[in-house]
Amino acid sequence: MNVGGLLASAGVNSVVCLAVFSLYSVLRKQPSFVAVYFGHKLARSKSKRRDPFWLGRLVPSASWVVKAWDATEDELYVAGGVDAVVFLRAVIFSIKLCIVASIICLAFVLPLNYFGKEMQHKHIREELLTVFTIGNVQRGSEWLGFHCLVLHIITICACFFLYSEYKYIMKMRLNHINSPLYRPSQFTVVVRAIPWIDQESYSDTLANFFTDFYASSYLSHQMVYEKSAIQKLMSDAERMYKILRNIHMERRYVKRLLRCGFCGSHSNASQDFRALSDESISITNDESFLDDSDECGAALVFFRTRYAALVASEALQSQNPMAWVTNAAPEPRDMFWANLCVSYQSLWIRKIIVVVASIFFVTFFLFPVVFTQSLVHLDKLTKLLPFLEKVVRRVVLEQLVTGYLPSVILTLFLCLVPPVMYVFSTLEGVISRSERKRSACIKVLYFVIWNVFFANILTEAAIDHYQISILKLGDYKNIPSLLAKAVPTTATFFMTYCLTSGWASLACELIQPFPLIANLFTRHILRSTEDSPYPYTFPYHTEVPRVLLFGLLGITCSTLAPLILPFVLVYFMLAYLVYRNQILNVYVTDYDSGGQYWPIIHNTTIFSLVLTQVIALGVFGIKDAPGPSTFTFPLIVVTLLFNQFCRQRFLPVFFRTPAKSVIEMDRRDEQGGQMEEIHQSLLTAYTQYTSKNGNKNKEIVSRTDAELDETEKGDICRA
Amino acid sequence: MNVGGLLASAGVNSVVCLAVFSLYSVLRKQPSFVAVYFGHKLARSKSKRRDPFWLGRLVPSASWVVKAWDATEDELYVAGGVDAVVFLRAVIFSIKLCIVASIICLAFVLPLNYFGKEMQHKHIREELLTVFTIGNVQRGSEWLGFHCLVLHIITICACFFLYSEYKYIMKMRLNHINSPLYRPSQFTVVVRAIPWIDQESYSDTLANFFTDFYASSYLSHQMVYEKSAIQKLMSDAERMYKILRNIHMERRYVKRLLRCGFCGSHSNASQDFRALSDESISITNDESFLDDSDECGAALVFFRTRYAALVASEALQSQNPMAWVTNAAPEPRDMFWANLCVSYQSLWIRKIIVVVASIFFVTFFLFPVVFTQSLVHLDKLTKLLPFLEKVVRRVVLEQLVTGYLPSVILTLFLCLVPPVMYVFSTLEGVISRSERKRSACIKVLYFVIWNVFFANILTEAAIDHYQISILKLGDYKNIPSLLAKAVPTTATFFMTYCLTSGWASLACELIQPFPLIANLFTRHILRSTEDSPYPYTFPYHTEVPRVLLFGLLGITCSTLAPLILPFVLVYFMLAYLVYRNQILNVYVTDYDSGGQYWPIIHNTTIFSLVLTQVIALGVFGIKDAPGPSTFTFPLIVVTLLFNQFCRQRFLPVFFRTPAKSVIEMDRRDEQGGQMEEIHQSLLTAYTQYTSKNGNKNKEIVSRTDAELDETEKGDICRA
Repeated sequence: MNVGGLLASAGVNSVVCLAVFSLYSVLRKQPSFVAVYFGHKLARSKSKRRDPFWLGRLVPSASWVVKAWDATEDELYVAGGVDAVVFLRAVIFSIKLCIVASIICLAFVLPLNYFGKEMQHKHIREELLTVFTIGNVQRGSEWLGFHCLVLHIITICACFFLYSEYKYIMKMRLNHINSPLYRPSQFTVVVRAIPWIDQESYSDTLANFFTDFYASSYLSHQMVYEKSAIQKLMSDAERMYKILRNIHMERRYVKRLLRCGFCGSHSNASQDFRALSDESISITNDESFLDDSDECGAALVFFRTRYAALVASEALQSQNPMAWVTNAAPEPRDMFWANLCVSYQSLWIRKIIVVVASIFFVTFFLFPVVFTQSLVHLDKLTKLLPFLEKVVRRVVLEQLVTGYLPSVILTLFLCLVPPVMYVFSTLEGVISRSERKRSACIKVLYFVIWNVFFANILTEAAIDHYQISILKLGDYKNIPSLLAKAVPTTATFFMTYCLTSGWASLACELIQPFPLIANLFTRHILRSTEDSPYPYTFPYHTEVPRVLLFGLLGITCSTLAPLILPFVLVYFMLAYLVYRNQILNVYVTDYDSGGQYWPIIHNTTIFSLVLTQVIALGVFGIKDAPGPSTFTFPLIVVTLLFNQFCRQRFLPVFFRTPAKSVIEMDRRDEQGGQMEEIHQSLLTAYTQYTSKNGNKNKEIVSRTDAELDETEKGDICRA
Repeated sequence: MNVGGLLASAGVNSVVCLAVFSLYSVLRKQPSFVAVYFGHKLARSKSKRRDPFWLGRLVPSASWVVKAWDATEDELYVAGGVDAVVFLRAVIFSIKLCIVASIICLAFVLPLNYFGKEMQHKHIREELLTVFTIGNVQRGSEWLGFHCLVLHIITICACFFLYSEYKYIMKMRLNHINSPLYRPSQFTVVVRAIPWIDQESYSDTLANFFTDFYASSYLSHQMVYEKSAIQKLMSDAERMYKILRNIHMERRYVKRLLRCGFCGSHSNASQDFRALSDESISITNDESFLDDSDECGAALVFFRTRYAALVASEALQSQNPMAWVTNAAPEPRDMFWANLCVSYQSLWIRKIIVVVASIFFVTFFLFPVVFTQSLVHLDKLTKLLPFLEKVVRRVVLEQLVTGYLPSVILTLFLCLVPPVMYVFSTLEGVISRSERKRSACIKVLYFVIWNVFFANILTEAAIDHYQISILKLGDYKNIPSLLAKAVPTTATFFMTYCLTSGWASLACELIQPFPLIANLFTRHILRSTEDSPYPYTFPYHTEVPRVLLFGLLGITCSTLAPLILPFVLVYFMLAYLVYRNQILNVYVTDYDSGGQYWPIIHNTTIFSLVLTQVIALGVFGIKDAPGPSTFTFPLIVVTLLFNQFCRQRFLPVFFRTPAKSVIEMDRRDEQGGQMEEIHQSLLTAYTQYTSKNGNKNKEIVSRTDAELDETEKGDICRA
């Protein structure tokens, strides 16, 4: 690709982005899409905006940009919690580092690369992009020392920024923990693997244990119940009711269209069913139906003070490490009840299976991709599989298969990745939703780095240099030089990737195509009058890996192929605006990990830095520059030591709670006389079974199948 | 080597062993060596055995074997603590596994290997040892399935034994923790990294912190002082006094020989010095000399209950994870005071440096060995370095250099390993002597496995098959087949290694050459009348790796070269008797890790099993046996899963204390009314500075150099 092509591509993508942004600025003003673009505000205010029509609604404007820009960090914290602020700090960190790298690399490194060899330069528009990479510098050139210096400057800046961010975020997390807002989770401990004692229910065993060993601080407990048959029936009935209602509405709509509105008495069935459903909910909404046999060996135990709960959550309770396992409890809305009943004894094997499955998934994901791309060569396939010949004869089908199917299948596969990782994380047996998302985030991150970054570099190496044979021999010493050859040449691809996938993903994030289509579908096809709200939480498990991937691209290419930096910088700046807007307006914040994403971001950045240094080492090796090589090696050591220092200095606070903080909070509440109040509210804080209609916040408790009387069963079946 | 050679070697070694054992049985009856062979009993009873001469003293007997055999596990526990029992359980485990493997492998696998190929067998005495290995089985033979079956049986037996041992040792450890014996460490927490607050001593800061946050359970504290100048002077003076006294005695002895005993008044100087030394000790034995400026940021904090100490030791105290670091305290005699004053901030970097240094040491240890062995070819060296020629002309020197020097240097290097690892572990900053020994044990284990097991196999591969080139390419897929080829051929070497190094090390351990020579030296050359006691603790850091190495040899060679098994079995049986005897009689037990050596033993055994399976996989691959290969792979997975299960089920108890246990112990003491007594004794339990004469148990406290008055300084200098 030459410079002209790149500029054209950048132009097209900019125009598309601008168009989408303008479209968004119009769409967000339409009252009918308020549920799509203001889910957060809708969930907060519960009032629907029904503005009259005004002309401004159709004119694109940049007001949302101004609003997103003006929001303070406190507003973001209120809207999205610590995690949102951490995510935006990661974007800000990337912007800062990118600006520093851009200034140095574009001003000094780019000319060095361009004039690195004595050659006849073409007109700038027709110049190949590879002349801007380090590949264009002569072997043994003295200017390579300058590349090494730039690498040092970038590393030092990155470490400095990382350190200050880590410190800042640690303080924020501590403030978050110390905040005067009362959180039930601080008084609560999740107990799993309660041992089964004959002729005693789990509840009695638990009460005996804690009144015995934690007499002074034990307040109360709440058992976790298995999702019993009645609960399953209830949710089935609810789902069926919804489906029937939708079908009925559709029928009514069609009838109204055909018969011009004569369908008054036809809705009786639906009303009947709705009444029945409400009745059955009210019948089962009684705790006396709960049976001991539904208890599973897990419970929530409430303590009188935060400190007691902290101590109980961290101790090894009994002589058997696989009984009486205690953990800090998640917040009520963060609780992932389904996994609490999973046998603790099986957790370790679940984790192993999930790790193995994830590794397989990440490593061999490219095989179906390669298979789909092989479909492009359909003529070859038909020779191998003659029965395909008949199908292929139809020209339209052939074009479809060769032209669109591969990319469609690839996109579908890629869309599958986050949900699959989500399922993996669920199977791991995590007990909180935030932990599940964090775990999925890590898996997606591995996936993205392997399948986008490394896979492309290896493919490049295989195509351009026929060097895959080196890799097959597994000679680890050659990996730096392999990367050194492949990264500068792959940089061109990464530039276009940044333009298409990066910028486009932001436009996509802004316009929210899926909720938009769903909204249009329900409003105009199903004719539903209800604004179904989209209470999505922020998809950290897809967005954090994406931002980190572009960070990795920016850092690794900075000294080798600095032309990518402006595009990455633009991506981060757009990301800053878009994500601020989305956090303020679109997503709701049901749960919060308290900034536990930062260690992931930190570690990935350190990985990027070290990878860059290793690649640079390879490049200096290829280019016969012993001096820069010598100076790069200590840089790797220092970077790793810096990482280790940060682990010592900051990391423990992200996974453990300081005793001092909770003791001080307990004192504050005791002196303020709020402890009694807190103890009262604790007992009702956690509810395992809530109705699916989240707004009602109604508790549905379960009972055994046997107790359900036959008439009710018949009613549900008939409905 | 052929069978005859092996038998001859075994015969010679057996005779040598028997001779040494007989010598030991005589030596141990001599009253003059009671300090060498009964250090343990001497330390306990403090009374010296002064039997009259009787003829039985010169007759070898097997009474010690009977005594060692008869000792119960309780006696061993009393003599050597949990660690001694764990070590002996490891030996018993090895014996059990070895018996099972010997029966199966010698009865079934050995004939299979011997008749594996259709070949003309020589007379059994002249048969090469390689015909007894799996290398003699034909390619594609159906009998390889039997090898696979035997591997399965051995693995299952090993896992079964490991599981029952782990369970047994976990119970023993819990009983040890729960024992009614009061241990000060259970009430004590080591606090490091006390923050420095202006105009406040560390002691005040600490008292404020703990009275503030642990008001109900905080009892008292004791600061740790830096080894100040006066303390150094004191120990120098003491050492000088001892040297002078020894020289004086020597002089007296020589004079007595020459002048037939006229040296009455000459001992005045020594008496003067002794008096002076005692005086200076008594002067400094006063706590009022202690200065705040000698405090370092570490202390021991005593709590009212064991539970409070446990909670305080496990919590993250403050918002800064590098301040107020708390750990469970070691026992008073286990305490390693010198490391308590090491700045906590520097610990992480010390650990990294030690890890890197250990890796270098383990990996590159063989280079000096190779260098020493290159000295054998002195004629080559003289060509390179002509100035050596003159030296070499002397025939005696040449023979010395070529004949003995290489093995002497190698032995010296090998003797250096445990002390070097000990120093590494000290530099790591561990705060207990048991932890230091455990850490050194792990390092020596890595050293032994790499430098004895793998180095020999690789050398074998390099010499016999010129396959080192495969290794250079680093192709990890070839490693199993490389091992598969090399291990059976190296088995011959391992057999002789077991005979020489294994059996000889036990004889050496029994006869204790170094203390014996030291004893002879002091008694007959220095003419000292005092039995200097040798209060050695058991050298787990050399003996555990040795036993584990022979376990590794036995397991890996079991199916491949079963002829090694009888030798390993004899080694373990001798080890059982010898180590029981040594624990009962020789070594004192100053400190105890509470069975923390078992996880090391368990992990190494699992490693040995998996390595064996991987090698078997390689062998089956070479021998074209797809069936056995297929069945071996799941065995590896199951073994690893078993290990993971044990980690979950047992491991936590080895590094954390169950809350239930300590709460029950606290209750017992409170109900028994012993708490007050315990609190009183706690305050004097830990003493940082004791006199070097351990028996007196006299506390020497330090003071600053400035306070030492000039006269005293002069006296010490003149002395």
